[in-house]
Amino acid sequence: MDFAYDARTEQLRVELTDFLEQHVYPAEPVHAAQVAAAGDPWARPAVLAELKAEARRRGLWNLFLPDPRHGAGLTNLQYAPLAELTGRSPHLAPEALNCAAPDTGNMELLAEFGSPAQQERWLTPLLAGEIRSAFCMTEPDVASSDATNIATSIRRDGDHYVIDGRKWWSSGAMDPACAILIVMGKTDPSADRHRQQSMILVPRDTPGVTVRRGMRVFGYSDASHGGHAEIDFEGVRVPAENLVGAEGTGFAIAQARLGPGRIHHCMRLIGAAERALELLCRRAAERVAFGRPLAEQGVVREWIAEARVRIEQARLLVLKTAWLMDTVGNKGAHTEIQAIKIATPAMAEWVIDKAIQAYGAAGVSQDTPLAQLWAQARTLRLADGPDEVHRNSLAKRELRRWA
Amino acid sequence: MDFAYDARTEQLRVELTDFLEQHVYPAEPVHAAQVAAAGDPWARPAVLAELKAEARRRGLWNLFLPDPRHGAGLTNLQYAPLAELTGRSPHLAPEALNCAAPDTGNMELLAEFGSPAQQERWLTPLLAGEIRSAFCMTEPDVASSDATNIATSIRRDGDHYVIDGRKWWSSGAMDPACAILIVMGKTDPSADRHRQQSMILVPRDTPGVTVRRGMRVFGYSDASHGGHAEIDFEGVRVPAENLVGAEGTGFAIAQARLGPGRIHHCMRLIGAAERALELLCRRAAERVAFGRPLAEQGVVREWIAEARVRIEQARLLVLKTAWLMDTVGNKGAHTEIQAIKIATPAMAEWVIDKAIQAYGAAGVSQDTPLAQLWAQARTLRLADGPDEVHRNSLAKRELRRWA
Amino acid sequence: MDFAYDARTEQLRVELTDFLEQHVYPAEPVHAAQVAAAGDPWARPAVLAELKAEARRRGLWNLFLPDPRHGAGLTNLQYAPLAELTGRSPHLAPEALNCAAPDTGNMELLAEFGSPAQQERWLTPLLAGEIRSAFCMTEPDVASSDATNIATSIRRDGDHYVIDGRKWWSSGAMDPACAILIVMGKTDPSADRHRQQSMILVPRDTPGVTVRRGMRVFGYSDASHGGHAEIDFEGVRVPAENLVGAEGTGFAIAQARLGPGRIHHCMRLIGAAERALELLCRRAAERVAFGRPLAEQGVVREWIAEARVRIEQARLLVLKTAWLMDTVGNKGAHTEIQAIKIATPAMAEWVIDKAIQAYGAAGVSQDTPLAQLWAQARTLRLADGPDEVHRNSLAKRELRRWA
Amino acid sequence: MDFAYDARTEQLRVELTDFLEQHVYPAEPVHAAQVAAAGDPWARPAVLAELKAEARRRGLWNLFLPDPRHGAGLTNLQYAPLAELTGRSPHLAPEALNCAAPDTGNMELLAEFGSPAQQERWLTPLLAGEIRSAFCMTEPDVASSDATNIATSIRRDGDHYVIDGRKWWSSGAMDPACAILIVMGKTDPSADRHRQQSMILVPRDTPGVTVRRGMRVFGYSDASHGGHAEIDFEGVRVPAENLVGAEGTGFAIAQARLGPGRIHHCMRLIGAAERALELLCRRAAERVAFGRPLAEQGVVREWIAEARVRIEQARLLVLKTAWLMDTVGNKGAHTEIQAIKIATPAMAEWVIDKAIQAYGAAGVSQDTPLAQLWAQARTLRLADGPDEVHRNSLAKRELRRWA
Repeated sequence: MDFAYDARTEQLRVELTDFLEQHVYPAEPVHAAQVAAAGDPWARPAVLAELKAEARRRGLWNLFLPDPRHGAGLTNLQYAPLAELTGRSPHLAPEALNCAAPDTGNMELLAEFGSPAQQERWLTPLLAGEIRSAFCMTEPDVASSDATNIATSIRRDGDHYVIDGRKWWSSGAMDPACAILIVMGKTDPSADRHRQQSMILVPRDTPGVTVRRGMRVFGYSDASHGGHAEIDFEGVRVPAENLVGAEGTGFAIAQARLGPGRIHHCMRLIGAAERALELLCRRAAERVAFGRPLAEQGVVREWIAEARVRIEQARLLVLKTAWLMDTVGNKGAHTEIQAIKIATPAMAEWVIDKAIQAYGAAGVSQDTPLAQLWAQARTLRLADGPDEVHRNSLAKRELRRWA
Repeated sequence: MDFAYDARTEQLRVELTDFLEQHVYPAEPVHAAQVAAAGDPWARPAVLAELKAEARRRGLWNLFLPDPRHGAGLTNLQYAPLAELTGRSPHLAPEALNCAAPDTGNMELLAEFGSPAQQERWLTPLLAGEIRSAFCMTEPDVASSDATNIATSIRRDGDHYVIDGRKWWSSGAMDPACAILIVMGKTDPSADRHRQQSMILVPRDTPGVTVRRGMRVFGYSDASHGGHAEIDFEGVRVPAENLVGAEGTGFAIAQARLGPGRIHHCMRLIGAAERALELLCRRAAERVAFGRPLAEQGVVREWIAEARVRIEQARLLVLKTAWLMDTVGNKGAHTEIQAIKIATPAMAEWVIDKAIQAYGAAGVSQDTPLAQLWAQARTLRLADGPDEVHRNSLAKRELRRWA
Repeated sequence: MDFAYDARTEQLRVELTDFLEQHVYPAEPVHAAQVAAAGDPWARPAVLAELKAEARRRGLWNLFLPDPRHGAGLTNLQYAPLAELTGRSPHLAPEALNCAAPDTGNMELLAEFGSPAQQERWLTPLLAGEIRSAFCMTEPDVASSDATNIATSIRRDGDHYVIDGRKWWSSGAMDPACAILIVMGKTDPSADRHRQQSMILVPRDTPGVTVRRGMRVFGYSDASHGGHAEIDFEGVRVPAENLVGAEGTGFAIAQARLGPGRIHHCMRLIGAAERALELLCRRAAERVAFGRPLAEQGVVREWIAEARVRIEQARLLVLKTAWLMDTVGNKGAHTEIQAIKIATPAMAEWVIDKAIQAYGAAGVSQDTPLAQLWAQARTLRLADGPDEVHRNSLAKRELRRWA
Repeated sequence: MDFAYDARTEQLRVELTDFLEQHVYPAEPVHAAQVAAAGDPWARPAVLAELKAEARRRGLWNLFLPDPRHGAGLTNLQYAPLAELTGRSPHLAPEALNCAAPDTGNMELLAEFGSPAQQERWLTPLLAGEIRSAFCMTEPDVASSDATNIATSIRRDGDHYVIDGRKWWSSGAMDPACAILIVMGKTDPSADRHRQQSMILVPRDTPGVTVRRGMRVFGYSDASHGGHAEIDFEGVRVPAENLVGAEGTGFAIAQARLGPGRIHHCMRLIGAAERALELLCRRAAERVAFGRPLAEQGVVREWIAEARVRIEQARLLVLKTAWLMDTVGNKGAHTEIQAIKIATPAMAEWVIDKAIQAYGAAGVSQDTPLAQLWAQARTLRLADGPDEVHRNSLAKRELRRWA
């Protein structure tokens, strides 16, 4: 047992920290001003392209991809502390490094399950950061934590498939640069429960695809994830070779995609919580109320101590989970992935809430990143399966140990 | 001791409930659509004018004003359950009844402290719902929970006063219909701590008044409160008769305004929590997950029961506080006003959070009122003095009982 | 709506407070010393008899009994604030006033359902405080929150009934003065679910009754409730006229007994929490740590403020529940009785925990009443139905409102 | 970074688990019966001696001592998972392995700071498990979390020291086998703040030593720690060579003793929480309420999942702290020691509380180990410095990072 990061991780942490301090944090107000000026809440501010260029120049690019043919070849355990650092500026840093959801999951999916042709057509420009992508699974009328509920149909018609259905919370699809949608639907409703679904690639400009609106998250557009679209698919026709893998493998592919996606979210939330704690401490040191700095007031100190204690615990569990994924595989780490999915958003929500409180009205406004960080943490208590689903499943496994 | 509402309250509750069901709830999606179509997040949707006309026609108008010359002449205890009902649709109902903050506090202030000329010029159109108003107290650079920190200057210059300073979180000032600003500043920085401040009326179109931007609240514009503006006052010159009351009375007037304002917020939060609980129950009854309706799942039932228990307790404390304000005055009810200011937002936040969780992604989006209700509850944990300030003060009084 | 106590209640509160201050609080260390000296944790210390004589002399006797033929003839609303006061010294005051569980519930039961002969034989000495009694319902092997699970049999045999079974948590039965057991069992296992049970009176010295041991509560004997016994009933034969009411009425009688019992517990817990808050404040004023009194430390102030806010809310809900029981009956107040059963123990537990923390090691020891108060509050989260059962039931009713 | 235990640890875990299953768990009811039969709550039941003999025979002895001359020579990281296992049966296993507080800390102290003569006279029989020892630091009248408050005097008088003062919570001193007291007092009240104190060895049978009473912990005697005594020292005279180290080193020695003591407590609490979770799961599987096993009820599953998630996080932080103590020393691990002291008792308290609730009345009684486990966890929120002191100190260090 050893709690030290390895040398490569330490080196990359230094490099990434330098990039954040030199480029990302200074770009935050620039980004906010460009978004405000654009009018369109899903516009792509110019500063983002500059950050991407600089990150790529520094070799801080595609760190998330374990496959060394496509990415940095890091293990989950090596990537975790880096993803954490990007979570300190979650609306800029992940995309600057080409490590933003949902593209990360989509790239992994294409790298693992895509045909060579699919990889050349879509994975290559995604790896280059030239386009963005969307993942279309959730549907408005069913409980999406149970993937077997999906109603969208993917019907074979000669050399083509025809897609009909409605999706929402299709992350990525509001981004003007989004070129490709990965759509999950049913190719065979009569098959076994987990063999009915398939994944298919649909270029966003295919006729029959209508992006109806962007879903808001506590008033935010969530543009850094490419927003979350409601999309109609009406008689959408794509070539048969757009299917990812074989018919009936959609559920398995979705499962494979979710594990890493969940841990990435958790890693970034650790960073968000660290950023909030730093902001809380800075505020406490500067702000005077009733004659004394907040930093000398017992209640604020309790928040700070408690925040530190909670962050440390959650980080260790995330790191152990990453280690398990590396050593026994995503399936072997299933319980721990659920555990961090339960623990981390709640922790981050708590820490950020305290920082908000210390900033008063500024904390809920656009003048700090806190309110938006909070909205993200809160949303992750229900995205990718609400806490209750994960708790129920984790408890069942625990109960089996003693039955 | 008697826990029944009196006859007039019961009658008004019936009438108000009917108005909500017949007009307000159906107007909610209309309002959302009109806001979305307007582009400007602080625009005044047409449906609001229709609701106001209908409410006035029904005699549901200015219920908040205890002075029978101007308003309904209800006691706080009678008004409380009605304000609660308006809190069920807090972005429409309060303004529809001409009972929305910050106008309510401003009207009370003018009714109590305004000169006859000030009343005729500003109170009359406010009572008629023809204009809106803003309250400009908070400043960006100081801890506003301590009103003595205020830096804006109000300098006498012959027959005029000249105002210089910067305000933010000036609620109401983003509303296109906002015509008048009530500004707090210092007329005599050398006077006693609580005698330095004065209140003065500044028409919004006075030269030197610059509305710089609207503050966001978790991504929302909070247009139903007329937004929250950052405003520069540069050499703003108004006639001397615009001063409210005598020089040096600003602090006392602000204190008089805050007590009722705080209880109104708490009353409406009770209604917001009730609305959230109703939505939670409806969702639980309809939504099926893993083969069973949410309503049959133990965790959801715990939320519902706990929500009911918390709401009942908070409501009783709010009602008792209203009763104390009626029987021993705002000052005598000081402890209880602080108590409800601590208890109610936290309660509402908790209840609404659970409803959000039951709705999943829809809960954080624009498709339910929940996320915005939550943002309001959260903000009230820090607006008008953060919880920590109230707790500290309440504890000091408790400690004095035993010293 | 009116939040003031009536004149009789106020008068009795003054008298009871005087009794507590003059006699009960001073008797607490005496009581502790007598218990320690006795060796037997269920012994009856002599000081108790003195307190009972004094209380009776002052007319502070049997206040709990609404029936004026037997008791003080107070409404629930009048009794509530008095029971609260006794909860400040729960190991002495309730019994001193002949208002201690389980005797209160047993006296109510005999007053309402007992035959004249049963009343003369057992109610009269109980009202006089000459004997104590036990209530034997719970059984070791079944979930007692569901009364239909009861397995003890009550079999008719000529002019007698014969009782066989095992009970535990038979409150009262460890008291040396306990003379009579009220036993619930099944007279007809083939009847309707709620008509199988009957109640029967069993003198404790009846052959076949074996008190096996006293159950401990966090190490305490809970002697003030007469302890909690495990009892074997083996061929216990009593005359047929010992049956309370008719055969098959046991479940209904138990239900009738539980409502008032639950509210009495909650009333006393409010008083326990008030006592803990007073002790917390006194400690905070006296104790210096790291150069400052606890009273000046923000965290301790938060506890105090939060405690005050929680107590006020719970008390109002208890009082409203008492008012409902008086105005619409125990059945009409069912939801509220469940609500206070959920809310009050958790509140008291929280408040007492903070007082313990302020006292440090003394708080968990025999040198303050806090640890034992806490154990009682904790136990009431599961006695008379665990929180979860009440929440589940309350939620079902709430859900029906919207279905 | 590596999250696997090393081979020696794994081997010892297997051996220790076998010992627990074969000997310790079966001894629990025997132990309870022997204690009940003894009458004296601080008696030493015979079964303990048998367990000690068996543990020693198996080589599971003095595992806590890192010094290979005296103990097993394990690192903190190796010992942590073993201490955790002993915490599953904290009233038997630690002492069975000669690894129980306060003897562990006292043995460490003697091993590190004792003279050869002191070691031979006291350390040898302690290592052999022949005697027990007490640590006398806390005093009744001062805030002991600040060790400089200590009032007991140790006055040089020729070849002797004379000790006067009162101690309480002197853990270990109620045990009939306790032979030696390590007493902290002031040798020079005029010295620097942290140089006034010294430690001295006082045989318990020295004239002038009066054990006045055993402090109770929530009604328990805490006999497994040798109880907690209040002790008077009146003119207690011991040879000068009984001083541990030099005059003025008492504070430093106490600090050195506390770090390992705190982590040992936390390790055992992890085990206590694991035991409670196992009991909760077993109960959930067996107990039927309202027609379904608890294991199928959502609320119980939430408890189980949440318990698992909390335990995992706390364990990792404890292990990392052990690793830090091994790699950078106790001082370098100061923040983390405080963090686990804050996090672990609260976690254990939460988990055990849920298990108690699942067991109902049995949970608070002597029929499960839960209530006593809980009392221990609760006490550790204030023993060795209350949470608030540690949080305050930890926050100050965190604030310095950003100042």
